[in-house]
Amino acid sequence: MRAIIFVTVYILLFPAHFRAAEMSVATVECLDCHAEIMPGTVAAWDNSRHAKTSPQQALKKAEMERRISAKSVSAEWGKHVVGCAECHTMNPEKHSDTFEHNGYQVHIVVTPEDCASCHPVEVEQYGQNLMSHAYGNLQNNSLYQDLVKTINGVPFFENGRTGLRPPSPETNADSCLSCHGTKVEVKGFEARETEIGEEMEFPVLSGWPNVGVGRINPDGSKGSCSSCHTYHRFSIEMARKPHTCAQCHKGPDVPIYKVYQVSKHGNIYSAIGKKWNFEEVPWTVGRDFTAPTCATCHVSLLVTPEGAVVAERTHQMNNRLPWRIFGLIYAHPHPKSPDTSVIKNKAGLPLPTDLNGDPASEYLINHNQQEERRQVLQQVCLGCHSQQWVDGHWARFENTIKTTNESAVTATNLILQAWDKGVAKGLAHNDSIFNEAIEKKWMEQWLFFANSTRMSSAMLGTDLGVFDNGRWYMAKNIQEIYDWLKMMLAVTGETSPVAK
Amino acid sequence: MRAIIFVTVYILLFPAHFRAAEMSVATVECLDCHAEIMPGTVAAWDNSRHAKTSPQQALKKAEMERRISAKSVSAEWGKHVVGCAECHTMNPEKHSDTFEHNGYQVHIVVTPEDCASCHPVEVEQYGQNLMSHAYGNLQNNSLYQDLVKTINGVPFFENGRTGLRPPSPETNADSCLSCHGTKVEVKGFEARETEIGEEMEFPVLSGWPNVGVGRINPDGSKGSCSSCHTYHRFSIEMARKPHTCAQCHKGPDVPIYKVYQVSKHGNIYSAIGKKWNFEEVPWTVGRDFTAPTCATCHVSLLVTPEGAVVAERTHQMNNRLPWRIFGLIYAHPHPKSPDTSVIKNKAGLPLPTDLNGDPASEYLINHNQQEERRQVLQQVCLGCHSQQWVDGHWARFENTIKTTNESAVTATNLILQAWDKGVAKGLAHNDSIFNEAIEKKWMEQWLFFANSTRMSSAMLGTDLGVFDNGRWYMAKNIQEIYDWLKMMLAVTGETSPVAK
Amino acid sequence: MRAIIFVTVYILLFPAHFRAAEMSVATVECLDCHAEIMPGTVAAWDNSRHAKTSPQQALKKAEMERRISAKSVSAEWGKHVVGCAECHTMNPEKHSDTFEHNGYQVHIVVTPEDCASCHPVEVEQYGQNLMSHAYGNLQNNSLYQDLVKTINGVPFFENGRTGLRPPSPETNADSCLSCHGTKVEVKGFEARETEIGEEMEFPVLSGWPNVGVGRINPDGSKGSCSSCHTYHRFSIEMARKPHTCAQCHKGPDVPIYKVYQVSKHGNIYSAIGKKWNFEEVPWTVGRDFTAPTCATCHVSLLVTPEGAVVAERTHQMNNRLPWRIFGLIYAHPHPKSPDTSVIKNKAGLPLPTDLNGDPASEYLINHNQQEERRQVLQQVCLGCHSQQWVDGHWARFENTIKTTNESAVTATNLILQAWDKGVAKGLAHNDSIFNEAIEKKWMEQWLFFANSTRMSSAMLGTDLGVFDNGRWYMAKNIQEIYDWLKMMLAVTGETSPVAK
Repeated sequence: MRAIIFVTVYILLFPAHFRAAEMSVATVECLDCHAEIMPGTVAAWDNSRHAKTSPQQALKKAEMERRISAKSVSAEWGKHVVGCAECHTMNPEKHSDTFEHNGYQVHIVVTPEDCASCHPVEVEQYGQNLMSHAYGNLQNNSLYQDLVKTINGVPFFENGRTGLRPPSPETNADSCLSCHGTKVEVKGFEARETEIGEEMEFPVLSGWPNVGVGRINPDGSKGSCSSCHTYHRFSIEMARKPHTCAQCHKGPDVPIYKVYQVSKHGNIYSAIGKKWNFEEVPWTVGRDFTAPTCATCHVSLLVTPEGAVVAERTHQMNNRLPWRIFGLIYAHPHPKSPDTSVIKNKAGLPLPTDLNGDPASEYLINHNQQEERRQVLQQVCLGCHSQQWVDGHWARFENTIKTTNESAVTATNLILQAWDKGVAKGLAHNDSIFNEAIEKKWMEQWLFFANSTRMSSAMLGTDLGVFDNGRWYMAKNIQEIYDWLKMMLAVTGETSPVAK
Repeated sequence: MRAIIFVTVYILLFPAHFRAAEMSVATVECLDCHAEIMPGTVAAWDNSRHAKTSPQQALKKAEMERRISAKSVSAEWGKHVVGCAECHTMNPEKHSDTFEHNGYQVHIVVTPEDCASCHPVEVEQYGQNLMSHAYGNLQNNSLYQDLVKTINGVPFFENGRTGLRPPSPETNADSCLSCHGTKVEVKGFEARETEIGEEMEFPVLSGWPNVGVGRINPDGSKGSCSSCHTYHRFSIEMARKPHTCAQCHKGPDVPIYKVYQVSKHGNIYSAIGKKWNFEEVPWTVGRDFTAPTCATCHVSLLVTPEGAVVAERTHQMNNRLPWRIFGLIYAHPHPKSPDTSVIKNKAGLPLPTDLNGDPASEYLINHNQQEERRQVLQQVCLGCHSQQWVDGHWARFENTIKTTNESAVTATNLILQAWDKGVAKGLAHNDSIFNEAIEKKWMEQWLFFANSTRMSSAMLGTDLGVFDNGRWYMAKNIQEIYDWLKMMLAVTGETSPVAK
Repeated sequence: MRAIIFVTVYILLFPAHFRAAEMSVATVECLDCHAEIMPGTVAAWDNSRHAKTSPQQALKKAEMERRISAKSVSAEWGKHVVGCAECHTMNPEKHSDTFEHNGYQVHIVVTPEDCASCHPVEVEQYGQNLMSHAYGNLQNNSLYQDLVKTINGVPFFENGRTGLRPPSPETNADSCLSCHGTKVEVKGFEARETEIGEEMEFPVLSGWPNVGVGRINPDGSKGSCSSCHTYHRFSIEMARKPHTCAQCHKGPDVPIYKVYQVSKHGNIYSAIGKKWNFEEVPWTVGRDFTAPTCATCHVSLLVTPEGAVVAERTHQMNNRLPWRIFGLIYAHPHPKSPDTSVIKNKAGLPLPTDLNGDPASEYLINHNQQEERRQVLQQVCLGCHSQQWVDGHWARFENTIKTTNESAVTATNLILQAWDKGVAKGLAHNDSIFNEAIEKKWMEQWLFFANSTRMSSAMLGTDLGVFDNGRWYMAKNIQEIYDWLKMMLAVTGETSPVAK
């Protein structure tokens, strides 16, 4: 009876797209309380495709237009819209965060493995995406762990020396792991007074909240589809717009959105993108949009107005990327495995190149694989540009990869000198290579300035390749490192800097 | 007769929302010239609610839907739309900028006290907002005045020394006071040739133009409603959108909009906010919007779809804020009084904490008051998030307050050492603590980097808590200050840095 | 026959605005293949005014509403819509990139001279715009060429010294020339396999792709209309929106869009600009928009609702600009000639001022010309603001020009001291004045910080005049240069810094 009253009230409150017949009983029961308690979230869901379509209806579409990749779905739950219960009670036995809640086995954290009930191909592909391993790639790499400490550690000044206290889990969750993903674990259960008056028991989660791309979930799976497919709307429009990517890709280390904004593509999007259709599947070049967003080049299924496939949908993303241009000392071919913690360079360091830039080739894709990926990506470019245009652009991009790598070699040679001469302390002194000011300047050469320059080159966000963290800073930084080295050697009575 | 012709022409030129019957004769006379002379401003007003509704009509709405807070309005002017004359001839006797203009006693600067004729509750609340005292809080604090000089002063290099010539009033008005507000004073009257050919007399204003939040007005009142409610449209949509706040809150010292843009909330706003309703009063969570803007969390009257109040409207704003995280050496509980120039720390400095971070508690709200404000704010969060989600987020935020404060202590200890050793000159030398390069590095530790990190933590704009003015820079800056100190002591024959 | 089938198919694929009757046979033939090969570009064009109107139809409009400035057009091609063939086969004899393509004399690079067939006044005006000479102004100025090398050169560290290898043409095209424009030259012809299977011959272009403002074209003309009028949509809406200008004007050297975004004008645009009409010609203040974009103040033909001209359209742009506030050591009156490579200061350097700030007056507009330009610009301001408002704003702006110039003098005096004392090497040592770290700090004083402060002052993007690359950095930078100088002199056994 209460449910019937509720449904009536619900229709009045959320009239837009309501199809009561299709909600499962369980979902109706969820909404009975939660429409009052979390109206914003319920409204987001209510505006979603999930709230209006059942998986079985979704399967009836032509294959190219389908938004689910499962070949079939359960007859029982597949006939209802995808509501609260459908996701939050999926695979209860696999979830350590499952708890009894008003007669249902509910879990808090919906995971890629839950989503795979309808979207298995995307989850499979995403598992090959570096992002899905972003937690382990950071946490299981001793060098990166040292780096995290030198950034997140709390600085102190005692006995005439500075140092860093190790960062707390809260600090790491608030910074690096916010994008990389936390490890979400059940730390127990606790009773809590609820908004509707009753005391109820809930699991206590560590590393929560988090929607990082490589989150370790209570069912053992990796990642969070909601990093990009923001819950509970799960809007394809939102995922296709660049603001989603900007959440993790705007800072000086990965200035992708910053470059996009001032690129010609970004200009077109900002000026007339409001007229485009961000909802269609497949996504038709020219008809639905006339300039790319991030998703266009890196993710979406694209077709021509005549229906020819321009690019297959991928959630691996790097299968359209020959080069990995971010985050490391040198740009290099993409790693073969999404688990980069297995990589070792010749010196035994967990890095994809040696300090002189030589690639740890056995862990990286080869030239032919790079060529294949380049061609897949360029098919998208050719939707609007001539081959000569694309080739000219690409030649500049690869020239920039080469010159920014050379500039990083120079910075590295200077820091090697500082370590050799003892004015800075590196691996040979059993010291972090990231903790001193001069080491941070060395890092900025590649992590900020080379990255910005490459990204600018990739998408023509020109001032980021010149003055805005670009070549200007690469040139200035080298001179400042050199000046520092010279002055330190003078002060400490050492000889002048010499080449290695 | 001229007025009749004018009204006819006006209807043709500005047809959109015209209701001639409701304009006062005075306003019609204003428009007679000004529709020609300032068409942009007249059009902005013509599109406004002010141009379409009279205060008396506004009073007829249900209380929750009302946009005016006066219990009653003058029978005479309350029956007309709120036009030029209604505001610019309000309270003429209080305005030193009142002048005779075509038979009317007109003033140039419309003030909160004028607006209070219809909006007294908002003006009252705003008077308790730190912002309303932004002019005096800067100008009546000797330490801040010294800071202003070290930023705005014009640097010179003479006799082998650098120094600063004091900034002119124009420079201060163009920089700090542009947001804080100028003091607008009548400096005399002058005759001026006008666009319509006649010579007329106008007051000459100093500190004009300005729409800063703490502007001192010619009627003695404080603030400018048009800081956020941009004249002459006074659009609630604009005030509710984050771009308004960005005008004063984007730089490295207050990177609020920068954080919002790359937060999940900002992403949702940018991607699908165009479909939201920014005009409704009250503002319904879920129905009108599904992610917050600045105004949602800090200002607006929010209700659930069922009409339950989520948060009361406030123009004090800090009554939803337990912590003051910006602008000072350490984050601290909010000051009790909006007039912060009364605050003195134990050392007698006009600061809300001691240099070691201890709060000047008698001037600050206590723990219980912080708790109350936290709960008010978190009610907004709970419109979409679970209590566990909110608690987890808040724990990280307060952890960040703690660690950024610790990092500021470390930087302060280093600068104290520099002052002690005489390699920099501080209060003991009767010198500014803000004017040397190393002092500016010290300031950046808290004013830029700790601020960015805290703001990022508050709204999950993650790279601003890591690389983009975040923890990376806190760590690097400490090392650079330490390196500088060490090298200076070496050069000057001093011993190495020692702990305080 | 194939063409007929094509047209039928084309109508089905691009139905929106099709007018088959008006396409030329040649354009139909182009589309026959290219609608398949470049659907994005064809769709952009298909949505354009060019695709829907013929030049002859355009000429029939009232003069104020006309979007073409030719007095007459060729009877033959003027009757068709402006399609592929109309632009890409225009003036074939003048184009060294003309090639035989399926029976047509086609060229790749459409140039201002081609556009001048319909838009001669705009092309003529643009030829007087500094931008049209942006290539030569950079490439023919020996000092700027040295600057380019010190930014784009690839740093090396050899024999204990750092240095720069000269940048490659690809690097320059990818950075400075991306905005300034490349020199596009035909380097030969090559046969290429095409998407439709046939091998065809195409010209091989150097410096391609590029849409820089001063591009040197294969027909000898200068510039690229598509810098702002993005092909193939050529949308006036896009050109009028600030995102277009942001492509080249966002970095720290020219932070125009960054300032606009946080200005009141930018706030209004971001919040309610979606309701404005960006398509109308002429553009009516108040009716079409209520706050300016870049184009409003600097380019567009503006009228009042009554039809009175507020500002004439200009593509020279600097005829609304009394001061040149960017890119050089000191703000100065605008150069007389768009070719700035002719300028020499008293010391014989190719700079518009001496190192002490004195203007090279014979090459610059005089005070009266500045006054004229100021008045033209201020007419736009007066569309919404009173004269007193505008005067107060302008007084602050010119005060900022003065104080930022003074600050640049101080920085210059410090670097002159460094050169004199031999701790840095300048012109007297036959060395670049841009290549050392300390010289780059000197440059940042004017190129980044003075520029940001001036731009902020011009448009009230306040934190860019204070903390965000503004006065804070001007003050800090001077102190850092001074500290460096003092320490270098101490280390090298020199005396302390002395005033020049």
